[in-house]
Formats: sequence, structure tokens, C-alpha cells
Amino acid sequence: MDYKKWYQAHAAQIQKDFFTFLSFPSISADPHYTKDVRRTAVWLVDYLKQLGMDVELWETPGQPCVFATYMKAGRDQPTVLIYQHYDVQPVDPLELWHSDPFKPVVKDNQVYARGASDNKGQCFFSITAIGAYIKHAEKVGINIKLFIEGEEESGGVGTTAILKQKKEALKADHLIVVDLGLSEPGVPSITLGMRGITTMEVECTAAKIDLHSGEHGGIVLNPIRALAKVLAQMWDDKGKVTIPGFYDHVEELSAKDRAQIDWTFDQKRYAAEFGVTAFAGEPGYSLKESGMSRPTLEINGISGGYAGEGFKTVLPAKAVAKISCRLVPNQDPDHIFQCVSTFFKTHLAKGIGLKVECHHGGAAFRSPSKARIVQVAAQAYEEVFGMPCRFSLAGGSIPIVPALAEACGGDVALLGVALATDDIHAPNEHFGLDRFELGFLTMTRLFHILAGESHG
Amino acid sequence: MDYKKWYQAHAAQIQKDFFTFLSFPSISADPHYTKDVRRTAVWLVDYLKQLGMDVELWETPGQPCVFATYMKAGRDQPTVLIYQHYDVQPVDPLELWHSDPFKPVVKDNQVYARGASDNKGQCFFSITAIGAYIKHAEKVGINIKLFIEGEEESGGVGTTAILKQKKEALKADHLIVVDLGLSEPGVPSITLGMRGITTMEVECTAAKIDLHSGEHGGIVLNPIRALAKVLAQMWDDKGKVTIPGFYDHVEELSAKDRAQIDWTFDQKRYAAEFGVTAFAGEPGYSLKESGMSRPTLEINGISGGYAGEGFKTVLPAKAVAKISCRLVPNQDPDHIFQCVSTFFKTHLAKGIGLKVECHHGGAAFRSPSKARIVQVAAQAYEEVFGMPCRFSLAGGSIPIVPALAEACGGDVALLGVALATDDIHAPNEHFGLDRFELGFLTMTRLFHILAGESHG
Repeated sequence: MDYKKWYQAHAAQIQKDFFTFLSFPSISADPHYTKDVRRTAVWLVDYLKQLGMDVELWETPGQPCVFATYMKAGRDQPTVLIYQHYDVQPVDPLELWHSDPFKPVVKDNQVYARGASDNKGQCFFSITAIGAYIKHAEKVGINIKLFIEGEEESGGVGTTAILKQKKEALKADHLIVVDLGLSEPGVPSITLGMRGITTMEVECTAAKIDLHSGEHGGIVLNPIRALAKVLAQMWDDKGKVTIPGFYDHVEELSAKDRAQIDWTFDQKRYAAEFGVTAFAGEPGYSLKESGMSRPTLEINGISGGYAGEGFKTVLPAKAVAKISCRLVPNQDPDHIFQCVSTFFKTHLAKGIGLKVECHHGGAAFRSPSKARIVQVAAQAYEEVFGMPCRFSLAGGSIPIVPALAEACGGDVALLGVALATDDIHAPNEHFGLDRFELGFLTMTRLFHILAGESHG
Repeated sequence: MDYKKWYQAHAAQIQKDFFTFLSFPSISADPHYTKDVRRTAVWLVDYLKQLGMDVELWETPGQPCVFATYMKAGRDQPTVLIYQHYDVQPVDPLELWHSDPFKPVVKDNQVYARGASDNKGQCFFSITAIGAYIKHAEKVGINIKLFIEGEEESGGVGTTAILKQKKEALKADHLIVVDLGLSEPGVPSITLGMRGITTMEVECTAAKIDLHSGEHGGIVLNPIRALAKVLAQMWDDKGKVTIPGFYDHVEELSAKDRAQIDWTFDQKRYAAEFGVTAFAGEPGYSLKESGMSRPTLEINGISGGYAGEGFKTVLPAKAVAKISCRLVPNQDPDHIFQCVSTFFKTHLAKGIGLKVECHHGGAAFRSPSKARIVQVAAQAYEEVFGMPCRFSLAGGSIPIVPALAEACGGDVALLGVALATDDIHAPNEHFGLDRFELGFLTMTRLFHILAGESHG
């Protein structure tokens, strides 16, 4: 079976179906889109049935999950569980998009749409690969389970709950998470670890209503001022996080782990690519290390008072910050949340009302390079890309992975063909059609190698 | 002429016209409402003509001004210039309003609408008083000029420009600014001074687009973090502003001025009225002094990243703060803007892009209690309210007053019947119909006293 030829013959139809998938505004973080999230899942169920899979829609306390299987290879053959998510990030600031985030367009061979890269693009080349493999392989030598969740971008309360109930269904010899990327264009790489995350919202209040800054300024403590003061104290002058307990238990990379990771980082090119003018690595670590293998603390959003057009001389009643921490192995998301929460309790000015609410979280994850599925994936990459596969660490998080790996029981490969320049989570997210094809080819090749065939 | 009787006989029609006035969304700070601002001015022109005044619409580089005169008292009689504004503040956060800000409703004898108090309410009882006086007084013993601007809430660029051109028209023996309030319900007071103001927007940028906080956290300096760090340094631990030059030239109140001001401040009642839980007076001054006679610095708004529902793990490209300073006599708004701007330039982290833009401003203003018009207004108040008039200072600002007082050339009385609990600039702004009537009666009484009549 020549998958490249097959792909090129079917490219128009594949793109059409991909665009339908992209057109659903499946924003799981915003309750306004709950119906759209469900419509996306239902569409996937139908689509996967057409490909010849057995499909179930799993209801959860949150967004539904799609679970599809193809188990005709026989009990002796390996079973692989493939993880995906069909939900996407919010689209704000909408005014910075050059086209509608949910009306995909192709420009310079790049598909522009929310989710084009993260992760509907990667999801869809995987689906396409499964469809082509089970329909056209001379012999289907592996059993496939496909698990597509709808809460990767919003905490995964429902997904976490369903994992506990569906452990039997999710059992497999190997887990492949196709939600990661390449270190640079054209160079294959497999991710050996991801940071964990804990997210929270901090609300500071000083009055029951917004006040006139003339009549009340000099009397009432401004909650933005109080909030800014605590935020500013979260780092020392060198950039180290000052929150007590934040670095406790942090596992340093072993010399061996460190040696196999690709630490390439071209700061000049990076600065040009993202228009970055100010850097903030952790003291004592390179920027790449600081961003991949060290815990970080970020303010993801802040609001308070009047920030619209013009000016409103208000002394605001409240100020809100959204804060997240990226975590490394041995850091517990709940513990880190408690550390940050305690820091606010002890540092916020007296009298200011404080509410710290935990959003989603998940521990860091590491996968050894010697794992069978990692070796298989590396071989598939090398054959498709025609060059050696590198190993890397990801700064991002897929909070569900540790629990999913436990439910699966097998070894884990974290892979994908996204690029850091895909503008994921940002306006004008995009994904290369060339990478869609490479992803498709890598997945089909991986299936054949896993089935024990040297050529597929 | 019994104005009380006349008012009560016409109350329904007055309220109907007042509600029409309130229904115009004349938000001068937001360019989306430019047409509505003009419609309000045009409506006022027609309304004042019907009252028997000569009316002009003055075009300016900004919003138009309404100028109406009644000059039939003769050259020997005094001429009074009455200042008002017809524009209002923005309405955000709209979700906290119990009713549409531009569909006035009456509840417990209070009118709820944006501008009900500040300043359409005060404007409209003044207009009603002028109408009743020129139509029904046995003898109109004063000449009246009425100047209603449309940019009090948004900087007054246009108004400032027109003042220079219209100096002759605005000449008068006395200026009455009816945009102030009572220290407490039922107790008349005249304001002897207002703070000045300077306003600005600070924008900090670190990248050209919002970035993924996992992939970039630990590499890029978050502009919210950089902004918060500078904001937090603007005050020392005791609450004194640390910006070099901020307190330069500040004029302390003389013992004599201090003695005549009503410093009553019931902190417990204040806290209960506004739900205030945290206070921030300047060290060395009482809260009342700190809020009325000392300069202050406030963060009026802040934004950056994703602050909507749910969570978005973004490392934002930029962060913005809106900042204003309230000023006292001898402080120059431009100088203070430069001080704050320089503070940001010297304190912001290296590499973060900075833009500091000056919005509107105006110097502080003081009016001596011995001025003839202050004495007349105090007498009118005392007769209508039946108790001695107090003197106070206002923490707020009407940036145009110093220039207007100069154009007028006469002495100045700052008065009004607003209350600190009217929720001006905030959701559910309201104004008592009882105070509307008291304001009306005070204004008509003031006209008669100014005309030299002991009874009107």
C-alpha cells in the first residue's frame, strides 16, 4: 500500500472533512459553547463509524468523550491507544484574527483556524491514518483504540471522572499521545516529558461597588494596587519565584536524561519569530531549560476597573488575576496551588477581600526513551522524514496524561508535528498542509512497524 | 411667586422631560456614542429655546457645547454664568445594573439612570429653575448665561478650545458650577475647592502576539508581571507615593482654610455605605484630609491576557493600566504626568516595550468663602434647608473650572445636591427626587438674592 499516493489521490476530500471538523466552535472553557462542543463530538462519532470503527459517545460530568475501536487484529497482536482532544482554546482577542477562527482558510499552504494545529489538525491526520490503515493495509496487524476527549483546554473534570469508570476499555499495550510538536521544521522529534500545571483565579475586593476615584481616592485601598503588590512579590529581583514551597521536591534532570535531550535554542531566531523583546529565564538555567524542565509561574490574565476605550476615573471594587504554574516531576499540583494561595493570604493588604479558586491541574509526565513505543515511533519518524529522530521535553501540559497512562497500563509515546510558530492558543493559529501529510504518513508507518512489519 | 407650589403643580411634566434628557446615552469618552452626544446637545438647544432663552450650539474640535442666555435684566443688574455638563460616564460593568442605564426608573423616590446625579440631574433642576424664574418672577433682576459642555467626563479638549474663542460671551460677574454635592443628606454645603487631575494610559509589551504559557513560560518575560512590579513600587509600605516629584510644590492648607472646612468623617458609616473593607489614607493625614486636600494616585483600570470565563493559559503580548492622579493647588498636571511617565521609564524591566499616553487633565481649584457669590449661595441654601451652610472640599475634579473661571472673570461658587452615595460613575447611579426639588428651590432662591431681593 502506497500511503503517499493514496493521500494525494484523496487530499481534496480529506481537506473538506478536516475543514468541517474545524468549523465547530468547540471551546470547552466557555459555557456558551457547550452545545457546540457536543455537536463536535457527535460529528466525530458519525465520522469514525464511516471509517469502519466501533464508536461510543461517553457521557461525563463535563464534556463528552469519543471512544472508537478497531479490534480485528486478534488477541495476539498489540493494542495501541491513541489519545486526542477535539476541544479548542477561546479565540480572544478576536480583533487580531485575519479571518474567522471557525471558517478555515488556506494561505501559503497553511490552514488558518482555531484548532488547526492544537489539536484538531493532529487529531484529523491521525484519524485519516487509522481510516486508511484499516481499510487498505494488506493485513491489519494491530488493534486500535482511539480516545478523543473534549476538555483538554479546560481542566478535564469530566474526562478525569470517566477515566476511572472506563479503565477496562482503555487498557492497551501502548499509548500514543498525538498532541505535541517538532523542535524545528522538518526535523522529527519525540517528547520525553511534559510539564504539569496548576491553574487558579485570585479575586481581590475592597468595596461592594466601583467608586469615584476623586471622591474616594485617598480613602479606599485600591484592590488593583493591592493585587499588583502581591503579584510583584512573587519573584525576586533575579527572577526566582519567592513563594515558599514552590521549588520543594523539584526533581533535577539526571545527567543521562539531560544528555539525550535536544537543547538547541536559537535565541535570536526565537526573538524574531515571536517578536519577543524581553526574556525571563530562571537564574542558573538556560532559557531552554527554564522553559522546558523547570517550574514556572505566570499571570495569564488580569482585569479590574475600566480598561476600555477612553477613560473612566473609577476606583474599582475588585481586581482579578488568573495565574498558572507549570510543574516538573515530583511537584504536586494541589500542593503548589496551596503554596500560591497561602502566599496571597499572607501577603495581601489587610482588609482586602480574597478569594483564590483552583481551576484545573495535572502532574508532570516523563516517558523513558527506551520504551518500545518510543522506539517504534522514532523509527517511523526517521523513515518518513529521512533523518534521525531527536528527543525533547515540552514546556506545555496535557494534564490528563498521567491518569490516562495509568488507565492504559502500557508505555507511552508523546509525539506530533506541531511547531512553536503555529500560534496555538493565539490569534491566527495555523497548521501546514505539508505537516498534515507527514503526520499522516508517520502514523501509518508507525502502525505497520508496531504490527511487526518492516514494510507496510 | 411660590416656587414650591409651582414645582409641585408641574412635577409630572418636569419629570417627563428629565427622563427624556436621561434617555440619551451621551457617553463622551466612547467614540461609539458621538452621535448620541450630539443628539443630546441638539435636544437641549430646543428645550432651552422653549423656556425663553436665546440659544447657540457651539461647535468645537470635540463635542459641541450649548450656550443659552437671558439678558433682559438690564446692564446694571448682575450677570451670572451657570456651568453644567450634559455628557455622562460609560456604564460598564453593565451586568451589575438592575435596570437599563438609559431607561430611567423611579424606586423609593430615587431616579436610577446613568447621569441621574452626575450631572443631568443637577443640570436639569438648574434649567427648570431658570425657566421658572424667567417666566414667573415678578421682576427678573439678573442676567443669566448658561454654559453646558459635553466633555466633562472625557477630557474636554473641545471645550478647552472653545473657551479661548468665546471669552467675551462667557464674561459674567459670577460663576456658579452646579456639579457638586452635600457632605450629608439634608445638610447644605458649598465646596471651596476641588482637586485637579491628570490621567494616562500605560502599555507594556513583550511579544508581538499572545503566547502559549507552557511553551514560552520560563523564556519570555510576562508583561503583566513587569507592569505589576512597577505599579507596586509606586507606593512605599506606608502608602506614600514614591514617584520622584509627586509631592513637589504641594500647597498645605493654611490654618485659616483648614478651620472653616467641615472635616466630619464617620469611617464606620462610610464603610457600611460603600461596603469598604480596606482603607489607604496618606500617612500623616486623616482619611478625610487624604481624600480631599492631598494628591492621590490611583490605578483606574488594568487589563492583559485572558480574563474572561474559564481559563486560557496564555502568556500575554501586552498589559495595560489606566492611571490617574488627583492634584491639589500648585501641582501642574503636565508635570505630574511627566513624573509618572519617567517613573515607568526608569523602573520597567529591560526589554519590555513601553508607551505612556497622556489623557485629559486639569489643575486644582480653590474659591474663597468670602466671595459674594459664595455668600449668596450660602444664604439661599440656609433659607431653603433651614440650617447653616457648611463649607467643604471635594476630592473630585472638574478639569475645565480654572479656565472657565478665568474666562468668566467673576467669583465662583461650587455647589450642588449630589450625595456620595449616588453611585456616580458606578452601576445603578441614582438621584433623589426630593433633592431635585431642593436643588430647584435653592437655585431660584439664589437668583432672587443675587438680584438684591430679600424675598423672591
